[in-house]
Amino acid sequence: MSAFRIFACAICVAVATLIGIGRASAEDGHELWLRYRPVADAATAAYRQSASELVVTDNSPTIAVTQAELVKGLSAMLGKPLPVVSAVTQDGAIMLAVTGKAKVISDLRLPVAGLGNEGFVIRSATWQNHKVTVIAGNTDVGVLYGAFRYLRQIQTAQSTANLNISDKPRVQIRVLNHWDVLGRGSANSAGQSIWDWPKLPAWKDPLYTDYARANASIGINAVVPNQINADPVMLSPMYLRKLAALADVLRPYGIKMYLSVQVTSPMTVGGLKTADPLDPAVKKWWADKVSEIYTYIPDFGGLLVKADSEGEPGPQSYQRTQADGANVLADALKPHGGILFWRAFVYSNDPKWDRVKQAYDTFKPLDGKFRDNVIVQVKNGPLDFQPREPFSPLFGATPKTNIGMEVEVVKEYLGGATHLFYLGAYWEEVLQADTYAKGKGSTVASVIDGSVFKNKLTGFAGVANIGTDRDWCGSTFNQANWYSFGRLTWDPHASARAIAEDWAAMTFTPDKAFVGPVVDMMMASREADVDFMMPLGLHHQFATGHHYGPEPWGNTAGREDWNPVNYNRADKDGIGYDRTTATGTNYAGQYKPQVAAVFNDLKRIDDKDLLWFHHVSWDYKTKAGLPVWDDLVRHYDRGVGEVVAMEKIWAEMKPYVDTDRFAKTTVFLQMQEKEAKWWRDSSIAYFQSVSGRPLPEGIAPPEHSLDWYKELNTSLKVPVYPF
Amino acid sequence: MSAFRIFACAICVAVATLIGIGRASAEDGHELWLRYRPVADAATAAYRQSASELVVTDNSPTIAVTQAELVKGLSAMLGKPLPVVSAVTQDGAIMLAVTGKAKVISDLRLPVAGLGNEGFVIRSATWQNHKVTVIAGNTDVGVLYGAFRYLRQIQTAQSTANLNISDKPRVQIRVLNHWDVLGRGSANSAGQSIWDWPKLPAWKDPLYTDYARANASIGINAVVPNQINADPVMLSPMYLRKLAALADVLRPYGIKMYLSVQVTSPMTVGGLKTADPLDPAVKKWWADKVSEIYTYIPDFGGLLVKADSEGEPGPQSYQRTQADGANVLADALKPHGGILFWRAFVYSNDPKWDRVKQAYDTFKPLDGKFRDNVIVQVKNGPLDFQPREPFSPLFGATPKTNIGMEVEVVKEYLGGATHLFYLGAYWEEVLQADTYAKGKGSTVASVIDGSVFKNKLTGFAGVANIGTDRDWCGSTFNQANWYSFGRLTWDPHASARAIAEDWAAMTFTPDKAFVGPVVDMMMASREADVDFMMPLGLHHQFATGHHYGPEPWGNTAGREDWNPVNYNRADKDGIGYDRTTATGTNYAGQYKPQVAAVFNDLKRIDDKDLLWFHHVSWDYKTKAGLPVWDDLVRHYDRGVGEVVAMEKIWAEMKPYVDTDRFAKTTVFLQMQEKEAKWWRDSSIAYFQSVSGRPLPEGIAPPEHSLDWYKELNTSLKVPVYPF
Repeated sequence: MSAFRIFACAICVAVATLIGIGRASAEDGHELWLRYRPVADAATAAYRQSASELVVTDNSPTIAVTQAELVKGLSAMLGKPLPVVSAVTQDGAIMLAVTGKAKVISDLRLPVAGLGNEGFVIRSATWQNHKVTVIAGNTDVGVLYGAFRYLRQIQTAQSTANLNISDKPRVQIRVLNHWDVLGRGSANSAGQSIWDWPKLPAWKDPLYTDYARANASIGINAVVPNQINADPVMLSPMYLRKLAALADVLRPYGIKMYLSVQVTSPMTVGGLKTADPLDPAVKKWWADKVSEIYTYIPDFGGLLVKADSEGEPGPQSYQRTQADGANVLADALKPHGGILFWRAFVYSNDPKWDRVKQAYDTFKPLDGKFRDNVIVQVKNGPLDFQPREPFSPLFGATPKTNIGMEVEVVKEYLGGATHLFYLGAYWEEVLQADTYAKGKGSTVASVIDGSVFKNKLTGFAGVANIGTDRDWCGSTFNQANWYSFGRLTWDPHASARAIAEDWAAMTFTPDKAFVGPVVDMMMASREADVDFMMPLGLHHQFATGHHYGPEPWGNTAGREDWNPVNYNRADKDGIGYDRTTATGTNYAGQYKPQVAAVFNDLKRIDDKDLLWFHHVSWDYKTKAGLPVWDDLVRHYDRGVGEVVAMEKIWAEMKPYVDTDRFAKTTVFLQMQEKEAKWWRDSSIAYFQSVSGRPLPEGIAPPEHSLDWYKELNTSLKVPVYPF
Repeated sequence: MSAFRIFACAICVAVATLIGIGRASAEDGHELWLRYRPVADAATAAYRQSASELVVTDNSPTIAVTQAELVKGLSAMLGKPLPVVSAVTQDGAIMLAVTGKAKVISDLRLPVAGLGNEGFVIRSATWQNHKVTVIAGNTDVGVLYGAFRYLRQIQTAQSTANLNISDKPRVQIRVLNHWDVLGRGSANSAGQSIWDWPKLPAWKDPLYTDYARANASIGINAVVPNQINADPVMLSPMYLRKLAALADVLRPYGIKMYLSVQVTSPMTVGGLKTADPLDPAVKKWWADKVSEIYTYIPDFGGLLVKADSEGEPGPQSYQRTQADGANVLADALKPHGGILFWRAFVYSNDPKWDRVKQAYDTFKPLDGKFRDNVIVQVKNGPLDFQPREPFSPLFGATPKTNIGMEVEVVKEYLGGATHLFYLGAYWEEVLQADTYAKGKGSTVASVIDGSVFKNKLTGFAGVANIGTDRDWCGSTFNQANWYSFGRLTWDPHASARAIAEDWAAMTFTPDKAFVGPVVDMMMASREADVDFMMPLGLHHQFATGHHYGPEPWGNTAGREDWNPVNYNRADKDGIGYDRTTATGTNYAGQYKPQVAAVFNDLKRIDDKDLLWFHHVSWDYKTKAGLPVWDDLVRHYDRGVGEVVAMEKIWAEMKPYVDTDRFAKTTVFLQMQEKEAKWWRDSSIAYFQSVSGRPLPEGIAPPEHSLDWYKELNTSLKVPVYPF
């Protein structure tokens, strides 16, 4: 009965696909970049030659999922089931080999010594009279990573003959932070939290396995499943059981479970009267609680803490330093080998203290005070994930502290689900920036991979954009941000363009006629959003209350440091925030002299950073040779045009893309164009009301009055497309 | 390029399915009962003989979707693309025929006269020298319904030769109420609201189309997309545009858009100082606002209102009657042909006024006072969707008022996503109950289909259990509740068992060895939950704050009418709520004498209703011949056993069910067993603490102490599986 039904089903799906019906076989994006579609006919034979069988001699859970992935991927791409065998029987065998368990590694003298626990070698060789491809690592997780690397070779239409690939991650802890609450809400712009806590531990949704596969394929090895404003109930036995069940699903994929906790847990969970990190009872409570967690999850990764930020309590409440707060947790974790991520996103509402200076001012003096199992988690920029920020001056400032980077994979301020905004291009700009920490070449990437200060512990965190939307991320192109985040945590020095090329090939088709234009579009997408949202170094110009849509006139937030006008500082004479050493807040002075010199100097500073560091008159001539008023308006205008240009490129891609994903991206780009125009028009209307200047020649006036845009914002209580 | 890729994809999917890999082709339940899997080999030839081509001569949007559905379904089930032609060319043609547009109807003298606007005829005949099957209706929507009926014939393995089927709905407005809020929250236990308002009107998710298909297939023709505690912003132009876009998607499927509004809208939206329904400015505001809605949606269905209930404002605030409140809206709708649903779920916290009496007391005196385009929407029982309630005494009590029934398709009190609880069996019990409104045989079904009082307007509403979970309803068996709701709105006299048989065949397989046991299990599932939750007429024994898990000891709700102890009234002497005419609240007296006589009489009342109507001593002997204490405990105990029995049946169904859906239901049944035990043990522990009686012989004591269960509830803030 069973065999008959499977056969019948195959015919059915094939027929349904042939005649183009049936949503079940629709391309809904759920498969991400692991679609494993058949390769071009012409290439099949060559690929099959080097993938005739899979040799598996190990039976660990990780090897089992590695085998499953290779069978799935190769069978589908090469159109032929891949036999699994326990010894080489023919040319073209793919061998999975773990150091100490597979003779082939020593026989072929594969260079596994320098691979660490997660690296791999993929080598084409002759062994026992057969042509084989060995995927080897010092651990089974290394082999898993190698297997995904091998699959990528085919997915991107590269040869699998004569392979000699060796790779390992440059950052140790590559972690997704899920800003998800237990009630399944999330900041992800893509539906609910994928963690169905109410049904765990009994029901382990198959989605978790696919999530783990996707992460492993890009090198992510750690997950914080709950929001930084953590619910204390997560530390209860009931939820630790749920967490342990989830950890069981992720473990074979090399992914460790972490947990976000509040510093007040000793009170809210433990019933103590204080959460003072130096109180002995508090120390004991944390030590006991962490030990308890390890009874549920023996390989638990560690904790993440947000403290003294946005209303969250912290060590400041007890006149303790951030190091005091962190170390009590670090000490509790240490005996178990656990890691503490302590966020540096600390600021208070002090009008005299430029908000972007506060993290540096707080953490720089504490350098050397944190335990060695602490990573201070620093946002890419000093403010809050704006379309463009200078890199945080904490990168490179603390030789004796492990500094990890935090980026938002979710586009909280950047168009949510709909805008096409390739964050890889953004992150690359930050990672390639030179801190001059140890002279020229001390890039942010080299700081966070530990090479500048020889850190023994490194980490790179991203706020996940993953939700229950069928395509995981709310849009197909948002998937590229998850993908590129993973690839950049593996190698922060990697090229955003190269990563985009891989992603586009794997997600759609490796056809160069598609990949070329689409990657161009992706790389340009970042500047498009900067242009229509916040050009020339403007920042924090978003609507108050939610982060969707423009409100450069915003001045009602109650806190000055949440008001857009505080950041644009526009008046009839000029615009921009003076953060220079000479006349401003001296935020520029937090950088090394070589960097500060550029930011301080109007002659040297790049136009893209201008209004972040300088207040200039409307007549000030930018590097583009235009009065800043004219240049600002032209940037807004250009931003809309750049979105239109993306629409044109996408329209030409129709022959290469399935109907469903083509349509969705087309509509989303149309929405982005209207929102770009909203940003352009309302920003121009506002700044014109302040500057009193005429529009430059050839620039169309805003479609509506400033009051119309103000009224529109009043009516928007939640992020919503208003047109 | 495009053709090549489609072909390649078909091979890939086929290969992937054959070797059993790939989640994309996994049976995740998304296709509901419209799976259209290939029929048994032996049956294919016969089906193909009567489905050789599809003759379409009309081009309305509804005929277009009818054609698409038949092509999709028949091509997949019969393994062969179905050609679409504009005239009969061969034997086996299926003809779509609308009265007045298709000669075949008059030629064959098809009996379309009595079909109304939504009925259909399916007739095998010879026409123009060819054997044909005509699917005919007076409207294209009738033809659509006929097409789904034709497909069901094959899906349930019935013959398509010599067809002579004629059917039409017995209720006019068959409506889903979505208790969804604009922020995408929902009461549906199945993820978020499927309405992605933030991206409408630009992005019309393909999910909406599949939702419409599913509804049309079971006869649902109306949708209220927003919650009864309605957000006023829904009446803004921005949201009316979004609503109109959604209406455009649903329209071809014969589904009209309704809207839930608050009676305070003239104030919250219109800025008036009052919402008094008799105020002329309020009347004018409603008239204008309704006219405005019709400019966006010309075939808008009407409004739904919850008033004077659970803190929602209503006409009582202005000392007006429910009829006053309803009629102002009805008058506004009347010129446009719109309908008003006015909910009867009205009650106040008056300890002297038995809550279950209040709807009747409020609405019965208003009989004849409502406009003829008003439907008073009455919950199936007088309390609130408990596992068992007597039918509401309002059914049959108001000859001059249109009474519609409201049921909860979502299992708010009945195990949410996980419990297997076939609501069809529950609803059938209510619909078949005899009101004696016009003597014996005046069933609830005959009241709401209008036949008892000759109503010109009829309606049947269900609170939708549909969300963004991939399987729509949170579990496969919850889909049966959506399905049976639709079928019962079409024909309230239908058999729940027959509906379950259709559903099981269409959702899994028509194999009798599967359908028989599974339908037995479904039909038994209702009594299982009654037994372990609230046997013998107990009600409202749920945990306070959320409706998940037991709390018969609950007495802290702040309102007496929200406290479980108020409803079980258990003390050391006895248990039950005296609602008799002689000594109780005389709720029984709200029924016709023939019904009241049974409920009032301990000798005549069924055990299942006992404690709803009577307070009896613990020694009182039930019809089962046991002291009520013993019988109560035995019912709790039996409930657990009934779940175990369902698990056994399901385990035997493994050969007939795909891996994914088999596993999910298996785990959910395991969860249900643990929760049944939770109900059993904590309820027995509590009632034993009150009665002081020993457990009957052979009954295992509760696993934990009463305090343990009390403590467990304290720790549960949200509905969550705690084991």
